Amino acid sequence: MKFEVTILGSNSALPTTKRFPTAQVLNVLERFFLIDCGEGTQIQMKRFRIPMSRINHIFISHLHGDHIFGLIGLISSFSLQGRSVDLHIYAHSKLEKLIRFQLELLESKLEYEIIFHPIFGTKTQLLFEDNSLSVESFPLKHGAMPCAGFLFKEKPRLRTLRADMLSFYNVPIKCRQSIKEGADFVDDEGQVVSNKKLTKDPPKTRSYAFCTDTAYLPRIVPIIGAVDLLYHEATFLKADVKRAKKTYHSTAEQAAKIALEAKVGKLIIGHFSARFENLRGHLKEAKEIFPNTELAEDGKKFSVKLDRD
Amino acid sequence: MKFEVTILGSNSALPTTKRFPTAQVLNVLERFFLIDCGEGTQIQMKRFRIPMSRINHIFISHLHGDHIFGLIGLISSFSLQGRSVDLHIYAHSKLEKLIRFQLELLESKLEYEIIFHPIFGTKTQLLFEDNSLSVESFPLKHGAMPCAGFLFKEKPRLRTLRADMLSFYNVPIKCRQSIKEGADFVDDEGQVVSNKKLTKDPPKTRSYAFCTDTAYLPRIVPIIGAVDLLYHEATFLKADVKRAKKTYHSTAEQAAKIALEAKVGKLIIGHFSARFENLRGHLKEAKEIFPNTELAEDGKKFSVKLDRD
Repeated sequence: MKFEVTILGSNSALPTTKRFPTAQVLNVLERFFLIDCGEGTQIQMKRFRIPMSRINHIFISHLHGDHIFGLIGLISSFSLQGRSVDLHIYAHSKLEKLIRFQLELLESKLEYEIIFHPIFGTKTQLLFEDNSLSVESFPLKHGAMPCAGFLFKEKPRLRTLRADMLSFYNVPIKCRQSIKEGADFVDDEGQVVSNKKLTKDPPKTRSYAFCTDTAYLPRIVPIIGAVDLLYHEATFLKADVKRAKKTYHSTAEQAAKIALEAKVGKLIIGHFSARFENLRGHLKEAKEIFPNTELAEDGKKFSVKLDRD
Repeated sequence: MKFEVTILGSNSALPTTKRFPTAQVLNVLERFFLIDCGEGTQIQMKRFRIPMSRINHIFISHLHGDHIFGLIGLISSFSLQGRSVDLHIYAHSKLEKLIRFQLELLESKLEYEIIFHPIFGTKTQLLFEDNSLSVESFPLKHGAMPCAGFLFKEKPRLRTLRADMLSFYNVPIKCRQSIKEGADFVDDEGQVVSNKKLTKDPPKTRSYAFCTDTAYLPRIVPIIGAVDLLYHEATFLKADVKRAKKTYHSTAEQAAKIALEAKVGKLIIGHFSARFENLRGHLKEAKEIFPNTELAEDGKKFSVKLDRD
């Protein structure tokens, strides 16, 4: 019952040998959602054992190279591996032009379909939804470049059946689905057993918000709400706050302020400037404001456990 | 006085964690020439300490993704690093369209110029020349895809002065350049000292040929001649010779045959199919025909020493 983010790349524009550009995979119940796709993403997937063939949905925050230059290689490799399943890409509409132009010029014939879903970038937008998960985008602030954050939220589960009580009241199997959905049980003699006796509250829904690249933007606080995990960019330290503002990036302190105000469970900071050889300063600065902060590092995994009680 | 190839990527289409797609750097007297540019090339350059800012010439064999998908990232990183020096790219003319379209769509303004030089692909073509080096392309055979090999040849050096003899004959400094160029020395009394007495033959010129991707193509033998180093693709083993032929690739045995016929100094085989976890079979197969064979491995360097005597 996983809900786990794997960091594939944690650096900003210029990659280093230890920190590839931005890419992450969110595993929700063994479905794998790719978020951003910097150069080398497919190599990192192999390194960190992400099953490439199970990536069916790719969410792209914005069209800076360090978030997209791995996409054409990934698309090509999917084809070489014999993929036949549709691939859904959620991004600014320019990305479709970029990919289709390359495929056409290079005469690459894919054996599968790519379905592009435009992100409009001016308001919150529901991008994906099924029985168990929804993904929304919301606008970030990255200068003239339209840029989206993503909010992944599990849907509420059905109520959890109490095996002991079902047995006690001799509830037949055929009635169980409706009880999970909240119905009371009425036995053959017309006696009503309330749903509360037969079930427990379901596990809490889990959630993840991804916010990069962006200037400090307190208006996202009510959007992300109290997510279990927040990834927020922290390109710079507070000493560089002017530079951060000018380049529409955030400092570690600003990322922590967002986490604190939104009351998130854990903050992951990333998208570090290549100028920083070590990231102790980022971690210290963020922890002073929001203690439950961790550094994004290539290969690191962050899980949210299913709260069964 | 280096003449050294560094392998940045040694795999064919699908990268593995140990073997990136094709890219190499040739260092000739501390000038760095990039050959092909698969995804992750800029990361490999950092890993193997290639000074990126000294890459001014990039040679692209053909427009399959595993040879070019690292180029747009490299071009962008050059710009982020403040490059102002012209960048020369030698490739099929479609590559210019591909790169310019991406730069325009992504609104990337470079602070340096890219000068594209088309490779026509139907005959041998002089791509680059200066006082010390020439680079020629020649056609390979890779199905419908135009594909070029590259031949890097040092130019003959001037003759080497013999310090003892210059001293013995009291040769003034102003005469030395013409003696290097082959002139005899005439002293103040009209006595002629032959050039042979004053100089030695210069070191031998060094050469490198790069041949990927290609079917077995014996007609390249007289073109590459007895180069010191030959890189030849060996995607498959001889057991897969039919598959090699069908996909316009070579086997390790075929690469070795080319090396043997051309009488090269050393053969480097590479562009291995991702299906091979280890490459002992490739090495054994090639060495049976051409013993001085080595495997291309990411990070490995192959030097040709300057023969000073």
